[in-house]
This record gives sequence, structure tokens and C-alpha cells, in this order.
Amino acid sequence: MSGKLDQLKEILGEVSDVYHAASVLEWDQQVNMPPGGSDARGQQLGTLGKIAHEKSTSDEVGKLLQDLKHEFTDAESDDAALVRVSARNYDKATRVPSQFVSKQAIVTTKALEAWVEAKGKSDFSIFRPHLEKVVELVQEYISFFPPADHPYDILLDDYEPGMKTSEVKEIFNNLRPNQVELIKSIKSAKQVKDDFLHKKYNEKKVWDFSEAVISKFGYDFNRGRQDKAPHPFQTTFSVNDTRITNRFESENPLSTLFSAMHEAGHAMYEQGSNPIYERTPLAGGTSLAVHESQSRMWENLVGRSLPFWEYFFPELKKTFPSQLDGVSAKSFYKAINKVEPSMIRVNADESTYNLHVMLRLELEIGMVEGKFAIKDLPEIWNAKMQDYLGIVPPNDAQGVLQDVHWSSGLMGYFSTYALGNLVSAQLWEKINADITDLDDQIRKGKFDSLLGWLREKVHIFGHKYDPQDLIEKVTGSKIDSAAYVRYLTKKYSDIYGL
Amino acid sequence: MSGKLDQLKEILGEVSDVYHAASVLEWDQQVNMPPGGSDARGQQLGTLGKIAHEKSTSDEVGKLLQDLKHEFTDAESDDAALVRVSARNYDKATRVPSQFVSKQAIVTTKALEAWVEAKGKSDFSIFRPHLEKVVELVQEYISFFPPADHPYDILLDDYEPGMKTSEVKEIFNNLRPNQVELIKSIKSAKQVKDDFLHKKYNEKKVWDFSEAVISKFGYDFNRGRQDKAPHPFQTTFSVNDTRITNRFESENPLSTLFSAMHEAGHAMYEQGSNPIYERTPLAGGTSLAVHESQSRMWENLVGRSLPFWEYFFPELKKTFPSQLDGVSAKSFYKAINKVEPSMIRVNADESTYNLHVMLRLELEIGMVEGKFAIKDLPEIWNAKMQDYLGIVPPNDAQGVLQDVHWSSGLMGYFSTYALGNLVSAQLWEKINADITDLDDQIRKGKFDSLLGWLREKVHIFGHKYDPQDLIEKVTGSKIDSAAYVRYLTKKYSDIYGL
Repeated sequence: MSGKLDQLKEILGEVSDVYHAASVLEWDQQVNMPPGGSDARGQQLGTLGKIAHEKSTSDEVGKLLQDLKHEFTDAESDDAALVRVSARNYDKATRVPSQFVSKQAIVTTKALEAWVEAKGKSDFSIFRPHLEKVVELVQEYISFFPPADHPYDILLDDYEPGMKTSEVKEIFNNLRPNQVELIKSIKSAKQVKDDFLHKKYNEKKVWDFSEAVISKFGYDFNRGRQDKAPHPFQTTFSVNDTRITNRFESENPLSTLFSAMHEAGHAMYEQGSNPIYERTPLAGGTSLAVHESQSRMWENLVGRSLPFWEYFFPELKKTFPSQLDGVSAKSFYKAINKVEPSMIRVNADESTYNLHVMLRLELEIGMVEGKFAIKDLPEIWNAKMQDYLGIVPPNDAQGVLQDVHWSSGLMGYFSTYALGNLVSAQLWEKINADITDLDDQIRKGKFDSLLGWLREKVHIFGHKYDPQDLIEKVTGSKIDSAAYVRYLTKKYSDIYGL
Repeated sequence: MSGKLDQLKEILGEVSDVYHAASVLEWDQQVNMPPGGSDARGQQLGTLGKIAHEKSTSDEVGKLLQDLKHEFTDAESDDAALVRVSARNYDKATRVPSQFVSKQAIVTTKALEAWVEAKGKSDFSIFRPHLEKVVELVQEYISFFPPADHPYDILLDDYEPGMKTSEVKEIFNNLRPNQVELIKSIKSAKQVKDDFLHKKYNEKKVWDFSEAVISKFGYDFNRGRQDKAPHPFQTTFSVNDTRITNRFESENPLSTLFSAMHEAGHAMYEQGSNPIYERTPLAGGTSLAVHESQSRMWENLVGRSLPFWEYFFPELKKTFPSQLDGVSAKSFYKAINKVEPSMIRVNADESTYNLHVMLRLELEIGMVEGKFAIKDLPEIWNAKMQDYLGIVPPNDAQGVLQDVHWSSGLMGYFSTYALGNLVSAQLWEKINADITDLDDQIRKGKFDSLLGWLREKVHIFGHKYDPQDLIEKVTGSKIDSAAYVRYLTKKYSDIYGL
């Protein structure tokens, strides 16, 4: 049988090479490409995508998978996982007709253009007909798959393999009242001071500081690099070449530090994937939520913690003495954790972020079920903002039109952001039970036990386990909001004296 | 018939996309890649190369070419050229068995390692057995093709389509005595002063100056960029994304300027290729010699001319006032054209460079003919150095081991460097006949007529005409040394008062 497994690995290895080549081209597009290069780059990416799709959906792959499916009885073995994950990918890729993929590309290209215009003019009616078509496409996509408990399960499964809509709903239903309550308490407390965060900071110094921090975390610059791009992101060309991008915004200069920690969190996950999984579908992270748990852990549970700044603040103050004159580590810690319900998800703090996500999930489920008329979306959006955050967007640009996702046909994606937050707290409780002096270590700028734990318990497994199975294996329970609620309550009680 | 042509273009378009994707990966490897990325990158490039080779040598392509071969009777048409060039590429690619390609990769990988060691220890005996194998491989490669007038023709044709060994020999035989004679005269003249070229220059200022110069030339930074890399090179991802790399060597700081002009010369050729040739084998430059004629023209005939520095020297002096204190444009011009026979080809000046190349061509022909025993190579090398340049390398590292080419299996390549010099002078005479005030324009920093002429007469045709045909079409005669000899004699008579 191993001959067939080798054949499968050979083909999937080439598919992986082509996808990674495409990732290099996409990275270059964001980081280096001169303006003129755009058309040809689109064409080149189209060709690579077509080649990878043809190779991975060939009859040969189908036959190999069919033959191999029942050969690996030890479910715990890497080979069994490889066949299982490959078979699932194959099934998904072959169910969706290529005509549909072409149609989708055309509809979403136009929808993206319309969204840009609609957002610019803050006029939902420009985007509405396009969103209607996107929703039809999403429903057609769902129709290619066998009926699930809920049609939205099909979408969710693309980002969180094995996760059910009912599970996510239940998790969020437990979480929502706690977060809403917390925000109400904070609103009536005395606001913290953060004016010093918005002074003028030197870009290069902030950038260098960000690299010093993530080097200390354990992000390996021999197997990665940080470059400037319009948006921060992480990308993987191999386990030994995993890069991040970042930006500098003068009105919020220190956000560069937190973006670096966030993206390095993603990158360290990828750098820690078992090298024997290279060039197979087991390489990399297992799901968006688990990926986000890593990025949010390094950004928030580590990078916005008091022990972290007890170590790093003196150095930061030495780098920016005038900006931080008279500021203590504690007051800096409070400032970077300031809670302020706001319209825009990407600017949201830890206590409000998940509510933005829940709102979107509810709207997506409503659209997929056909329960909402698309024309009513702005109104529903605004009502939910009032309910959850106590604020109402002054216009659609700051409301229903703020995110690019729907215009690109991405539905099923948003909840992974919030799930990642929850998982980060679940892992954090387990880590602190295992490494009892973690706070002290962080206070000394030592992160090797933490990273070592994550590598051993999470990173090394790559895509071998589905997210719920992995989290249960590591923490003893599936994804759950309790740990996150405990974390938030403790943190904000301290900061706001609740 | 046009249906079949479209089918061919569709396939070759994808092949072109894959090769350009590989070029992005190679560029990234030189410019950005962290050390860890190396193994996976090699694998990815191997896969892309394999895919492109499979696609371009498929039976489908063979049949289409067979059917299309006799359909385009107008030899001047682009379609006829496309079929002709594609058929030649197909013939070459299908003649060479893939087992040979694998064997070659193994032999040359080891040969390259041995060469690095041999050069480091200046010990030819370490490299000798590997070079023997490389020569066997080259002879085997030749055996895949129908017999030519001279076996070396097969190798030459890969770089200079249509060019014959006998033609190159004749050209070089005419050139050699003139160059040897010229060097003798210069040797007995008073040497020029160039100490100010080797002072300390600020890297960033030199780099910025180089970009200002090539922008003025007409290198379009909206369709390209210059990055730092271990070696200067030019690479093309599309007609609208054609990049160059450069380096800074503190012991020879201004070489950055001339490398930028050289690589921009290559890049402007690629940027000027007819956009309708994109994603076909007609895109880009027609041969290495014609390419080199463009790079050497901008670097030497423009960039090392007196009119050029009459315009740029005041600006350079303003940028580096202390380094160039007391230096005039004329003395700067003399310094950058200083003639000094030296061991190393890549450091050679205009009057000695071609002799280095001729030496290598004679050795390569001897090896292919089996006329030389490989063990005698160092001795033959040194004897020819004495004959042509009047100097003898003190060791093999500075002699027969200096170039990487043979260890990589590259034979047939060297003469294109010298041919490019000759072509640059042939074109230059024609340009000056057409643009009679060119020197005055250059003296005013104006290069648009020059670039316009090159675009119209050379660049636009891409790969449509074979090099000899193109040069004849443009200048009225095939590649010939007379113009270059006139150019050199005039230039050095002025500089050295011969």
C-alpha cells in the first residue's frame, strides 16, 4: 500500500509547491510589486491556481484516495490523518463545478468594485443588488453538498473543519450576556487616560522595537522576515520561510507593536508545524480559530498584560522618553487596554470585539436562511449595534458596509475571530496550570517555556486534528466561553476597579 | 486555422506564466529569502520547472505546431514568427531526454560544490574530474541534435539562435589583433589618475544617484524596481514588471552606478518589448548578445562617455564634494575609463574585456572538440593570458578557476558578452547617423531620442527576429568588429593621447 501513499504524497507535494509559489507571488504583490505589474500578476496567479486545482482534483488522486481510505486503521497515525484530510479536501474541491468557480469570480469582482463605491459614498443601495447575487451564489455553493444539520454548517466547515452552527450559536449565546454586562459596568466606571499613545512616535524606532519584541517571543528571523505592506498579514512559503507584514499609522503609532505580536503569533504557529508534514495537507495550522487563538494570545494575553509591560516598558520609555514622560508601566498598561465601544470591528478592544463578530454571524445565518431581505440589512445591523454595544452607526460606511468579506463572497469566516479569542483563554488557563510561574517568567522577558508548551501541545500537530478535537485533547473540553469571560472580568475589574 | 493558433497561445501563455512565477521565486531567493527558506524554494522551483517542461513538450503542442508550421506563409508576420520560434523551442526541449536533465542536475550540483572548494584552495585538481564529467555531458547534449557544421554550433544556438561557430571565430579573429595592439599602445602611454574613485562614498547617496541616472535614461520605475542582492542582475516578470538588482562594494563604491546603468539597459530592452507578445515566446530580448548590446551601450557608450559626465559630474560633485575635490569632469571621465590588464574578467575595462572572452571561447571549443586534455587547461589558460594581455595569473583561482559557468554546465555562453560589445558599437554608429546631435543631447541630460530609437528599431521586435537578422535589418550588416575597433581606438586615443 505504501506505494500508493507515496504516489499520493508525490502529487500533493507538487500541489503544495504550486500553492506556495502562488503565496510568494501574492506576498510580492502586497510588499514589492510596482504598479504596472498588476495585470500580469493576476494572470500568473490564475494559471497557478488552475494548475493546482487540476492536479489536486484529478481522477488519479481520487482513485488513490479511494484505495487508501480504509487502509490505515490506526486513526492516530499521521498517514491516516493525511488520507482523511486529503479525502475531505478532494471531496470539497470536486463537488464545486469549475463553471461555478468562474461565475463566482465574475460576481465577486463586480461586487468588490460596487462595495468600494458604496462604502465611499456610504450608500448601501449601490452594494445591495451585488450582495443579493453573492447570497444566491453562497446558497448555490451550499447546494453542491449533502444536506447538513444547518445549511450554514457547509460554510463554517471550510474554515473550522467539523464545527457545527449549533455549537457556535450555543457558545455565543453563553458569551453574549456576559460581554454586554461587562461593557455596561465599564461604561459607568472612570475612563482611563491614553493621550500619550497618540503623540508623534518615530516610525523606524517603533518598527525596530516590534522586531525586538517578537524576536524575544521566539519568532525566528532566520526562517521569516517582517516587511511593510498596506495591511498586516502572515504568509507561509514553507515551515522554514514564514513571513509577516506590518504597517505604521501615524495617528495610532503603537498599533505596529501589537500587529507585529499578532502576526508573529500566527507565524510561530506555522514555524512550529511538524517538518515531516511539509508538502502535505497536514502542514500549517488546523483552522482559522486555532490560528487566531495563537495570534490573539501573543497580542493580548501576553502583549497587553501587565507582566509583559513590567519587563518591556522601561525599554520603551528609554526609546521614547518625551512621549512617555511621567507615564508608569501600570498607566501604560491601562491605556492600551482602554475600552470604548466603537463602530468599527477592526479597531475594537478585547471586551467589545466579540460582539461585533456575533452580530455578523447572526446576519450571515439570516441571509443564508433567507430570513432577512437584503434591503433590511442596514436596519437590522443598527438595531443589533444598539442592543450589544449601546451605539448606532451614523452611516452605513461605519455600519453594514465596513467589512470587505461579503463582497468577496466570504461567509462563514467571521465567527473564527471570536472563537480564536475564546480558545486563547482556554489554552491560557491550561498553560498557567502547567507553568505555574508564567507571569514571573514574562515579567523577566522569558517566553521559552510558553512557546515550548505551545509547540508541544498545539503547533507540532499541524492539521492532523480537527480544531474541536485538538482543543479537547489539550484542555479537556471543547471550545467554550467560560475561560474567556473569567479572563475579561479579571482584567477589566483590575483596570476599571469594577 | 486560427483556432489552433489560439490553442497554442493558450498553452504557451500558461507556460509563460509558470516560468515568470519561477522568476519571482528566484528573484525573492536573491533579494529577500531568509536563510531557512532555501530547501523548500529549490523544491518549489523544481516543481514549477517540471510543470512548465511537461506543458511545453506535450504531444498536443507538437501536433499544433506540426499543423501550424506551413500555414503562415508571410514570413514577416508575427504569427509566422511565433510558430517558428515555438517550433524551435519545442524541438530543442523534446530532443533532450528527461533522464539526461536529471543526470545533468546531479553532475553540475557536485561540480559547483567542487568548484567552490577548488577556487577557495586555488587547486585545479579538485575541480578537474568534475569538469571532465561536465564536458562529457556537454558532448552528450550535442549528440541529441542532428550534426551541425561544428559541434559547438549546437551550444551557441541556445544563446544566439542561428549563430555559427565559424562566424564567431571570424569576427573574433578580426578583432583580436586590433585589441592586442591597442593595449600595447596604452601600456606605453602615461597612466591616468583614479585614486579619488576609491575613497569612502556613502552607500545610500550612491544608490540614490544611480536611481536618478537610470530614471533619466527612461527606466520606468512604475514598471520596475531596484533592490539589493549579492550580484547585479535583471529579471522579467512581465513587460510591466521588469526589475534590477545591484550591490555596493566599499572598495569600489561607484561601480554601483555602472551596474545600475548596465542592468537598466537590459531592463529597458525588456520594458520595450511589444506588449502584444506578452505570454508568448516572442516576448523579451532576442538573444544574449543583443541583450548585452543594450546593457553595454547604456553602461559604456553612454555612461562612460565624456558628454554624459559633462552633464552628470556637477551633480555628482555636489553629492560628494570632499571625495571629488579638485577633480574635473574630464579627469573623472579618464579615471572611469582607466585601462589596466587584469586577471579577472568581471573587473576588466572595455579595452581588455573581449580578450578574456576570446580566451574562454577558444578553450571551450578545444574541450568540445576533445583537442585539449582537461588537465592541461591551466597551462593553456596562462599561455593565452600572456599572449593577449601580457600578464600571467599567479594562481588558478585568479586564472582558470575564476568563472562559475563551467561548473554549472554553461558552455556556449561566454562569447555573447563580447558579441554584445560589438553590436553596441554597430548600433551606436547607426544611431549617431540618424540622430546627428546625440552627443549634445546627452550633454543636456536628454536620452529620449536615444531610447526612442532603440525602442523603435530593436526593443519592439522582442524575439521576432534572430539576432543576426535583426542586426542586419537595423545596421545594414551582420555582427562585425569594425565599429567597435573604431570606437575603442577613438576613445582611448583621446584618453591616453595615443
